[in-house]
Amino acid sequence: MSARTIWFTGLSSAGKSTLSQLLHDHLRAAGHKVELLDGDTIRRHLSKGLGFTREDREENLRRIAFVAELLARNGVTVIVAAIAPYHSIREEVRARLLPFVEIYVNAPLAICEQRDVKGLYRKTREGHMTGMTGIDDPYEPPLSPEIECRTDLETIEQSLEKILGYLHAQPPNS
Amino acid sequence: MSARTIWFTGLSSAGKSTLSQLLHDHLRAAGHKVELLDGDTIRRHLSKGLGFTREDREENLRRIAFVAELLARNGVTVIVAAIAPYHSIREEVRARLLPFVEIYVNAPLAICEQRDVKGLYRKTREGHMTGMTGIDDPYEPPLSPEIECRTDLETIEQSLEKILGYLHAQPPNS
Repeated sequence: MSARTIWFTGLSSAGKSTLSQLLHDHLRAAGHKVELLDGDTIRRHLSKGLGFTREDREENLRRIAFVAELLARNGVTVIVAAIAPYHSIREEVRARLLPFVEIYVNAPLAICEQRDVKGLYRKTREGHMTGMTGIDDPYEPPLSPEIECRTDLETIEQSLEKILGYLHAQPPNS
Repeated sequence: MSARTIWFTGLSSAGKSTLSQLLHDHLRAAGHKVELLDGDTIRRHLSKGLGFTREDREENLRRIAFVAELLARNGVTVIVAAIAPYHSIREEVRARLLPFVEIYVNAPLAICEQRDVKGLYRKTREGHMTGMTGIDDPYEPPLSPEIECRTDLETIEQSLEKILGYLHAQPPNS
């Protein structure tokens, strides 16, 4: 029986990294074997050379799934924070990584752009980069995620509570 | 405490894949959590696009080490089968992956070339490829591997016995 993979998807600056790190720390403190695979970290360690075309994004996500699979089947809960903008690739990794929990970290684009943690929205608006999800690259919102966190309406603590509530109510073997 | 990483290094056709698969199956049958990261598999899943320059080989080996680290620190014994032709990169991954067991799968080049499991030696000799370790690309033999298997002089069973003997005599916490 594989451990769960918990995948945070959403726009840049929606709150994926913050929430996933918080969940990771909470689960680890509670004694779980857990690893956090953050999109940026994975790009640095496994996907140097890949860009942001659809093909390259999908390849990057498949690499994350490959690593997640190795960990999960050895009983390690895997938390992924990665935009994963396409339905089809999210369904592909879900099928590969069951039991799978999809968390849609949702804030309106205008709010994400206001936060702009990495300054990428500004760079895009100023014409210094292209391929920015939500601006000139698509984001297909999840249709039926297990959990949705409206980070513009909820506090981080409320979002975490919601996630923990789900995880407790739906143990991986149920 | 991390689990062990057991790294098989040696020329193409020296016997790395055969021995590592045998060890993997043996340890799994004995109830251990164990994963085999085979160089060819990893290239397919994590390193599409990388070639066989020194830089690309090192990048590929660092990706293997990244995955091995995630597994080993969660108690999974990791077996790697990868040529890893340079001293410096082997020392780098050793330092990152302690406790580390280096197994030098050693057969003379002439024997490896005779076996030529993947037909790569022939391809190289016929001028259809370059960058073949042992022919037109260097292999720096390990200076003090924990174990050396002379696959031209020992049977597979003898090599496996030697490896298992070492692993039993040197538990990872000693």
